[in-house]
Amino acid sequence: MEKINKSILSEIIKTRDPESYKGNYGRILIIAGSLPFGGAAILSTSAAVHTGAGLVTVLTIPEKFTAINTVVPEAMTLDYNDKQEMARAIIKSNVIVVGPGLGTSTNTAEIISSVIKNSDSETTVIMDASALTVAAENKIDLTRVSKLILTPHQGEWARLSGLDIPEQTPDNNEAALKKIAPNAVLILKKHHSEIYDFGKILQIDNGNPGMATGGMGDTLTGILAGFIGQFGFSIETISAGLYLHSYIADKINKTDYVVLPSKLIGKIPKYMMKLSN
Amino acid sequence: MEKINKSILSEIIKTRDPESYKGNYGRILIIAGSLPFGGAAILSTSAAVHTGAGLVTVLTIPEKFTAINTVVPEAMTLDYNDKQEMARAIIKSNVIVVGPGLGTSTNTAEIISSVIKNSDSETTVIMDASALTVAAENKIDLTRVSKLILTPHQGEWARLSGLDIPEQTPDNNEAALKKIAPNAVLILKKHHSEIYDFGKILQIDNGNPGMATGGMGDTLTGILAGFIGQFGFSIETISAGLYLHSYIADKINKTDYVVLPSKLIGKIPKYMMKLSN
Amino acid sequence: MEKINKSILSEIIKTRDPESYKGNYGRILIIAGSLPFGGAAILSTSAAVHTGAGLVTVLTIPEKFTAINTVVPEAMTLDYNDKQEMARAIIKSNVIVVGPGLGTSTNTAEIISSVIKNSDSETTVIMDASALTVAAENKIDLTRVSKLILTPHQGEWARLSGLDIPEQTPDNNEAALKKIAPNAVLILKKHHSEIYDFGKILQIDNGNPGMATGGMGDTLTGILAGFIGQFGFSIETISAGLYLHSYIADKINKTDYVVLPSKLIGKIPKYMMKLSN
Amino acid sequence: MEKINKSILSEIIKTRDPESYKGNYGRILIIAGSLPFGGAAILSTSAAVHTGAGLVTVLTIPEKFTAINTVVPEAMTLDYNDKQEMARAIIKSNVIVVGPGLGTSTNTAEIISSVIKNSDSETTVIMDASALTVAAENKIDLTRVSKLILTPHQGEWARLSGLDIPEQTPDNNEAALKKIAPNAVLILKKHHSEIYDFGKILQIDNGNPGMATGGMGDTLTGILAGFIGQFGFSIETISAGLYLHSYIADKINKTDYVVLPSKLIGKIPKYMMKLSN
Repeated sequence: MEKINKSILSEIIKTRDPESYKGNYGRILIIAGSLPFGGAAILSTSAAVHTGAGLVTVLTIPEKFTAINTVVPEAMTLDYNDKQEMARAIIKSNVIVVGPGLGTSTNTAEIISSVIKNSDSETTVIMDASALTVAAENKIDLTRVSKLILTPHQGEWARLSGLDIPEQTPDNNEAALKKIAPNAVLILKKHHSEIYDFGKILQIDNGNPGMATGGMGDTLTGILAGFIGQFGFSIETISAGLYLHSYIADKINKTDYVVLPSKLIGKIPKYMMKLSN
Repeated sequence: MEKINKSILSEIIKTRDPESYKGNYGRILIIAGSLPFGGAAILSTSAAVHTGAGLVTVLTIPEKFTAINTVVPEAMTLDYNDKQEMARAIIKSNVIVVGPGLGTSTNTAEIISSVIKNSDSETTVIMDASALTVAAENKIDLTRVSKLILTPHQGEWARLSGLDIPEQTPDNNEAALKKIAPNAVLILKKHHSEIYDFGKILQIDNGNPGMATGGMGDTLTGILAGFIGQFGFSIETISAGLYLHSYIADKINKTDYVVLPSKLIGKIPKYMMKLSN
Repeated sequence: MEKINKSILSEIIKTRDPESYKGNYGRILIIAGSLPFGGAAILSTSAAVHTGAGLVTVLTIPEKFTAINTVVPEAMTLDYNDKQEMARAIIKSNVIVVGPGLGTSTNTAEIISSVIKNSDSETTVIMDASALTVAAENKIDLTRVSKLILTPHQGEWARLSGLDIPEQTPDNNEAALKKIAPNAVLILKKHHSEIYDFGKILQIDNGNPGMATGGMGDTLTGILAGFIGQFGFSIETISAGLYLHSYIADKINKTDYVVLPSKLIGKIPKYMMKLSN
Repeated sequence: MEKINKSILSEIIKTRDPESYKGNYGRILIIAGSLPFGGAAILSTSAAVHTGAGLVTVLTIPEKFTAINTVVPEAMTLDYNDKQEMARAIIKSNVIVVGPGLGTSTNTAEIISSVIKNSDSETTVIMDASALTVAAENKIDLTRVSKLILTPHQGEWARLSGLDIPEQTPDNNEAALKKIAPNAVLILKKHHSEIYDFGKILQIDNGNPGMATGGMGDTLTGILAGFIGQFGFSIETISAGLYLHSYIADKINKTDYVVLPSKLIGKIPKYMMKLSN
């Protein structure tokens, strides 16, 4: 298994062209949040904004607009209960996160279907959390998404793949992924998270157990979306996003017992500058 | 009376196992808040998140969801007016705080009854503030909770025990506790707070009068919940949580006239790291 | 005119008794805020909490509860449209701020009447902003409040006293105050604000024009309330509160062009500790 | 094309008169925000407050009041759906920002018409974003506003002027402006933004691509409004506001990969003091 090296960060995080404008840095759509899980939408959105994504829109429920406006005034807010609005937002976006805090209500299946229907071959879709469960339960055909990233943690992967945690060996994981979504990149979140990319397996060797706290995975989705919006879809970009998330967490964990997602997010702009080429 | 020593902190705050995940660090339920007392729910929840609790859910009224999402996006929010939702949340949790900002409406008695009915022998219940008053007034049988912590300040303890403050001697307190809740650990909040644990009496010798401000007790409940969620229910864990609360407050009080709960909470991750083993 | 000296701060800001509890530090009620002026309620409340007031309750409209909970989770919130709730809150409080952001609707007159009716000879009432205008317009008899502080700026004082700003000489101000509210202490907010106290006139010689910004007066009311709640009603306490407000503003103005109320409030605990005896 | 020099800042940012009060520093009205674009209203308002504007009112929808109160308690909030309230607010203001986050609904045309009708020859109007598009689409006659500033970025200017980005040469821009709004000052936001002022063309030579992120333009409108409210309407004031925005962004970009509007806003008071005369 190949290790992802810190040097991936300076390879990927490019100095920006002075003549560029926000339209060059991605149109990100975060489909996230429900009545009980509002914070997930905030963390994913805030992470995307802090990585430097050009335009970030959250598709959530109106009850969450005030909290999002307060914490992330840089982002726009739309209502996923308005199906036309949802379809238009998906069509206009080039990177879509679907899952953080959606829960497993019937609505989630509809949302995923709309993403699949309204995205095109240039759209990256990052599926997280409950979206993965719902896709599996509803046997939604994920092969229609050409740039798909799945980000389960070990427990979610167990439910998706049928593999208990001790059985989650590289070979088993690869075989399971081929069945579930042969066209997807899998990020398996664990101690030293792994990336499965069409036969290639990569692994980070950073990260720490202070990250074992609610919201850490939501934060990763926002970082990945921001990275892909700016630096393009590639295994290198995905590796860099995953690495950065753990890299900043390791810095925080030197002084903080628990690595709080809100704190990690606030430090993204500084570490990206420090590590850029 | 035995003094609690600072060394309790490094004994209890363990370095985390690299192979652990958030499910290992407690499923905390904070039942708190009502229309006039929304801040209490925020402070208790935020304190639990900042200690490193794995999963923190607040059971409150929907009117408070936005403020909680904004201040503590790491936490989940549920509605205690939905009795089935409440029951499910209690069953899924292993540490429950009940009381901060609930007020003394009839609803509070129902909530306490649901906690008693739906928790099991492995569940720790921390009862604070109005929940204590309501339990006393409604003669709710607290002996069915096997891991129970009561956290009154002297005034609340006077109402509960019938002991005026000058009468609150160790012997009287112990006798009163035996009658009220023989199976409970009592934390009596005062200058140099005391812990009564089945015949054993412990006392901290830190803390300061800058802590005499609204919300300080709510903050303690969150710290205790986070500690028990991570380090298990024991008199040592309780002692460490109580000690840490005053320890950080003493640090703040060196420079700040009043020790604001929000500020204390923000410093928990750093002091836990500094003081861990 | 006597100058207020910085030494007033160390005289008034006492080291707290270790055996004290929050009930010793004032039960403050801030009656403030309306749909367009929600921020005034937040700033006054936050200032009171940051000075170390024991218990702070805001009486406002429910639409403002979420913002208050978010910014000042230490405070409690009640609805001034519920007249019984308002009466009970007034009776329970020993320091009341009435005015910031209330506006001049008919409701304000009713609120002032309830304050006068339900407060007693031990209650301090601080009247600010629109409350002053409404009291004047409705010819509300203020002599029934025994501990009354008025805090108009020059423009408000012109409307109240009928004195144009150039006419606002010490003699004229004193004469006007005798007619309007002979039992009141007047704080006239201006460059080098003045205090009129039953024949005695005091003046601060600090403050700066960076304070000429919205919300600065609301902040002062909260500081005064917190000081009186902790250190008792006296001309010295009032002088110290007024002085501290400008003192911190001067420190901020060394580095900041405009002195933002939110920033001033955040620095109160540190300056109170530094300047306490 | 004349370059704007950093010295413009110390020329314009004057030391305040000690005898001044908040009424001297502008009555600013920010007409901004709609359900999906609430953050734009917050950023514009917050920027105006942080520059030192005396009184700042936001005219928006009530759904956004809580977020504004939370982030900028110094500002007042009114509802633009109440047409009388809107008219009164416009009449009372001397600097008006119209556009950030309004979107292109029919309402926006009505709002612009009300601004034109109710402002007078002393009122400065800053038109941004969707307001520009709507004004063009509805052929609203902008010549009735005597002090008008337009702040499109290159894409918006393309839509307004019919000039594709490569065609946006100084001569073409000037000719187009003469047709669209001959009495307006045009700020064309781009790499090294330009100001077109009745035949004169000025350009800043600072700014950086880290500013290419959502909300950066909203922030500029607030800075311009605050500057004009305090320092008067002139090409020098406008130049200084534009320069400061990029100046602070350049400082942030030394350490941060993306320049977040919220962060830029927080630094305004310090840089204004440092750069004042």
